[in-house]
Amino acid sequence: MGKRVAVVLAGCGVFDGSEIHEASAVLVHLSRGGASVKIFAPNIDQMDVVDHLKGAPSEEKRNVLVESARLARGDIQELSKLSVQDFDAIVLPGGFGAAKNLCTWAVQGKDCSVNEEVKAALQAFHSQGKPIGLCCISPVLAAKVFPGCEVTVGLEKDDKYPNTAGTAEAITQLGCKHVNKSVSESHVDEKNKVVTTCAFMCNAPLHEIFDGIGAMVQDVLKLA
Amino acid sequence: MGKRVAVVLAGCGVFDGSEIHEASAVLVHLSRGGASVKIFAPNIDQMDVVDHLKGAPSEEKRNVLVESARLARGDIQELSKLSVQDFDAIVLPGGFGAAKNLCTWAVQGKDCSVNEEVKAALQAFHSQGKPIGLCCISPVLAAKVFPGCEVTVGLEKDDKYPNTAGTAEAITQLGCKHVNKSVSESHVDEKNKVVTTCAFMCNAPLHEIFDGIGAMVQDVLKLA
Repeated sequence: MGKRVAVVLAGCGVFDGSEIHEASAVLVHLSRGGASVKIFAPNIDQMDVVDHLKGAPSEEKRNVLVESARLARGDIQELSKLSVQDFDAIVLPGGFGAAKNLCTWAVQGKDCSVNEEVKAALQAFHSQGKPIGLCCISPVLAAKVFPGCEVTVGLEKDDKYPNTAGTAEAITQLGCKHVNKSVSESHVDEKNKVVTTCAFMCNAPLHEIFDGIGAMVQDVLKLA
Repeated sequence: MGKRVAVVLAGCGVFDGSEIHEASAVLVHLSRGGASVKIFAPNIDQMDVVDHLKGAPSEEKRNVLVESARLARGDIQELSKLSVQDFDAIVLPGGFGAAKNLCTWAVQGKDCSVNEEVKAALQAFHSQGKPIGLCCISPVLAAKVFPGCEVTVGLEKDDKYPNTAGTAEAITQLGCKHVNKSVSESHVDEKNKVVTTCAFMCNAPLHEIFDGIGAMVQDVLKLA
């Protein structure tokens, strides 16, 4: 019997939504691991819409659930419908959407607020001892919701990880422990059952990011 | 020295653009194969914008290049800038965008027209003996541009491939040969250097589609 895994998305596109290749990698590895997956997203406006060609915000409005449905091929539900008893684990890919739409980290850093539905889902899985998988910038969600937890966002003293040191510092200020791990590794916080990998926090070839997410997903399934 | 591969996208989302998981799989496998990749898309309006939550067209307008930039993380160029001499191969993922924005197959079937830039690119690679990789519905582009070529869009007599038989019939009417191949296989037309796999034409678990695209990409790189 495969594990039942909820995947929570934050839009569709690295600069204003879920990082597409991270989300796809999560789903490929869950499929290979025999998991049965349901996809969720909050039914809210995106913080902004970024023209990914120009790299600049546009005047458009888009909805997180509607855009996440592109990644889900239409098979998606509102995050408010997620019942923790129906699942063995939860995974949240990264991308700016995780830091703009699931919380306000992109604007407020460690002083951010976390979307209430996201926070409730994370707390429910945590309190029932069910694993939480995160990658790229989404580990800050765990750092904010579970003070004292351990996460990785990459290697602090390596030029290939340009944003890791600053993010790790903020994570430390929240009372959490940042663990240095390379793009190919995941870190397991056994006590909190929080599993993290740095993904696109590293300037690595795409297949290395894919494999690192595979390590994270496998660790989540092992704990589930 | 890695092969130089152009990837041509058609938007971002299965119902009106490039199928996201196919495009991501192409890029992961090209990365693993050591290829250096540049991504292109035509700078045109999408045929339509589909709300992927409702599965119905919306009133919005979106641009194929701008939306494709989401898959390319901003690193993309106009298809009109593609010079065949800079590349060893070209790959076009599927999704309805291939049949709506790169040609009009979704509306006109075998009587479709092919976007002039797409047609010029395909003809240029073909005439220089450089391989062309296609998956899902995008093999119809080869069927339309290269009469007599061989492609696969899946298994004609198998319930897991509900749209294969009809598509294969149209391909045959264009004077091409449809070859039955399962989702895990690619078909190589050695004479035309056209490499195809059926991807989401099959109702298969995502990792099987991912692996089939891997077979196609590896065959493209072998021929390049």
